[in-house]
Amino acid sequence: MSDSNARFPTIGILGGGQLGRMTALAAIRMGIHIKTLSPSPSGSVAPLGQAVVGDWTDEAVMEAFIDGCDVITVESEWAPAEVAEKVSNGRIPVWPASSTLLTIRHKGRQKDAIQEAGIPVGAYLACSSFQEARAALTVFGGKAVAKKFEGSYDGYGNATVTSVSDLEKAWDELASNEGLLMEAFVPFVRELAVMVARRPQGESVVYPVVETEQRDHRCHAVMAPARIRPETAAAAREAALQAASAVNLVGVLGVEFFELEDGSILLNELAPRPHNTGHYTIEACFSSQFENHARSILDLPLGSPEMRTPAAVMINILGHRAGSVRTDGLVEALSHTQAGLHVYGKEEARPKRKMGHVTITGSNLDTLRAEAEAAAHAVQL
Amino acid sequence: MSDSNARFPTIGILGGGQLGRMTALAAIRMGIHIKTLSPSPSGSVAPLGQAVVGDWTDEAVMEAFIDGCDVITVESEWAPAEVAEKVSNGRIPVWPASSTLLTIRHKGRQKDAIQEAGIPVGAYLACSSFQEARAALTVFGGKAVAKKFEGSYDGYGNATVTSVSDLEKAWDELASNEGLLMEAFVPFVRELAVMVARRPQGESVVYPVVETEQRDHRCHAVMAPARIRPETAAAAREAALQAASAVNLVGVLGVEFFELEDGSILLNELAPRPHNTGHYTIEACFSSQFENHARSILDLPLGSPEMRTPAAVMINILGHRAGSVRTDGLVEALSHTQAGLHVYGKEEARPKRKMGHVTITGSNLDTLRAEAEAAAHAVQL
Repeated sequence: MSDSNARFPTIGILGGGQLGRMTALAAIRMGIHIKTLSPSPSGSVAPLGQAVVGDWTDEAVMEAFIDGCDVITVESEWAPAEVAEKVSNGRIPVWPASSTLLTIRHKGRQKDAIQEAGIPVGAYLACSSFQEARAALTVFGGKAVAKKFEGSYDGYGNATVTSVSDLEKAWDELASNEGLLMEAFVPFVRELAVMVARRPQGESVVYPVVETEQRDHRCHAVMAPARIRPETAAAAREAALQAASAVNLVGVLGVEFFELEDGSILLNELAPRPHNTGHYTIEACFSSQFENHARSILDLPLGSPEMRTPAAVMINILGHRAGSVRTDGLVEALSHTQAGLHVYGKEEARPKRKMGHVTITGSNLDTLRAEAEAAAHAVQL
Repeated sequence: MSDSNARFPTIGILGGGQLGRMTALAAIRMGIHIKTLSPSPSGSVAPLGQAVVGDWTDEAVMEAFIDGCDVITVESEWAPAEVAEKVSNGRIPVWPASSTLLTIRHKGRQKDAIQEAGIPVGAYLACSSFQEARAALTVFGGKAVAKKFEGSYDGYGNATVTSVSDLEKAWDELASNEGLLMEAFVPFVRELAVMVARRPQGESVVYPVVETEQRDHRCHAVMAPARIRPETAAAAREAALQAASAVNLVGVLGVEFFELEDGSILLNELAPRPHNTGHYTIEACFSSQFENHARSILDLPLGSPEMRTPAAVMINILGHRAGSVRTDGLVEALSHTQAGLHVYGKEEARPKRKMGHVTITGSNLDTLRAEAEAAAHAVQL
């Protein structure tokens, strides 16, 4: 963005989830205008900016939407950035680019891009037949993770495989026409994550390395900063920057790692957008991942990713039932007076659906963890 | 609010300024719904929740507005809370109550309420005639501040008076049918401020004492925490709590003090709403004044007012010209990478109008001050 005598810019967000919601909250704070486009009404983005509901694969809908926007972004790697690029025809930047999203959406191509950039990854094999997958399972020592090439998220579309019968089941469920991805099971001691924000010319900032804990393949807890060796942290931050460059990411990139027994790391997966492991940055960092997402896609100077507090813990709030959202437990949750409560405004709960989160900042990760767990557990959405 | 299986509540805000905007941003984050009512369109609240524009003195407009709200609040002591109370007729709480606002709006009644509560205030006299005012000037040692009884804010409606001719001019400009308020000039060494949040049954939290600096009677800078003796801080916090109780405030109350040479304090003025001297709480405290405003009027547990960082500085961004808002200096401002930039979305700038602010958190107030001043100065709105 040039620093002209111009009006404050408008960001058009494709998507109606919590990532768009939190990006909008950060951007509006800075005077930046927000439009969102989603295929169905969304309680998460309805109260923010101008929320458009329409068929985003329809070029006429997209054409009308991008009018007045200074940049288009996505809050999901599945949003149709390519439609925005087509109708914009170069008039309005679309970040991240659809070419970046296409690489990352496909687990095989994503892994290839990471490996080609010289970043350490675990052994993997794109398997176009069941026979290949069975061979891979053997090569990987009898324990592997089978993944859909496209469409997996939050534990959907993955299966841990330790026998041929497991593999048969996984193949039936997960294989597409081109097969599926087999990854060697990594005997990690910890999962780590790093966020990167990157501008169109490549200027980047990298956030602290955090520890993440999954339950049922879903992010449950994030502890910042990670209690790891300095050289492990340096390697993860460097690999995250390399990955952002390798996929030509503009915006923010979530990078997940496995830490091995010896302190070395393997890159696990990329997410070309604000990421659950970066929610703690709202309270804990000078500029949150959402603020830096807005800054980077507008090609504005990036804010500091450093933490303003010694430590922070984030715990997700998942849905406990199906149906309209109720306020059960709000009073109890708010009684944890240092907890920052985030509720995403979704109209419908589903079991295990991400409904909100809690972040607490302070100095002792164990103390913070206990308090954040209690506050998050109190909310029964 | 009872902790039932109910939907998330809705706050109706009377007003369209930055205080409503920042309250909305805090409430939406917690899943709370927002409606605003203002007499003319407002860029500050337009992008948040449901922004209604209408004649808020019209009972039919107010009746339609309060429908669906769980509580009504104001973001200005001049908003017509009494109209909301009348049409609500007890169905929906209105906080702060119009009786509180009536006391605080009128500088004479406000001072009486503070003094009757036993809180130290400077000498003052409600003067119904010029002769009384002249006598007050003499009694006060020839130096006084003349104030309109109602309608003064941000330096409008006040005049420092050191001569009879000053007083004649002030009387012509500021006196109403009931005259004006004369206050003895207080030889303060520092101005201090404290925010209090208070629930309907009186449960309260009190924020740290901060130092404030005015320029042209407008808040320019806030330094948190104040570099004062512990006993001065304790006295200010206690007086702020007493004041909130004395005016039966529900919501948040801004309390301004003078600190004298000997470390004692005099209460200067009250503001029955989020206050400019509390903006730093967004970044620096576990729960901001805006979050606790939402919590208190909904009768929800209050969040911790403690600081999560050792220190913070806030600098206001005032309008530099008249006309539509442009982005001049945004790039330079954002280059101060630890600064949190807040732009209020107003469509029109006016010289000296509050257009935004910058907050920086850290440990050294002098360093933070220099950086925050530079970032705020860079934005030319």
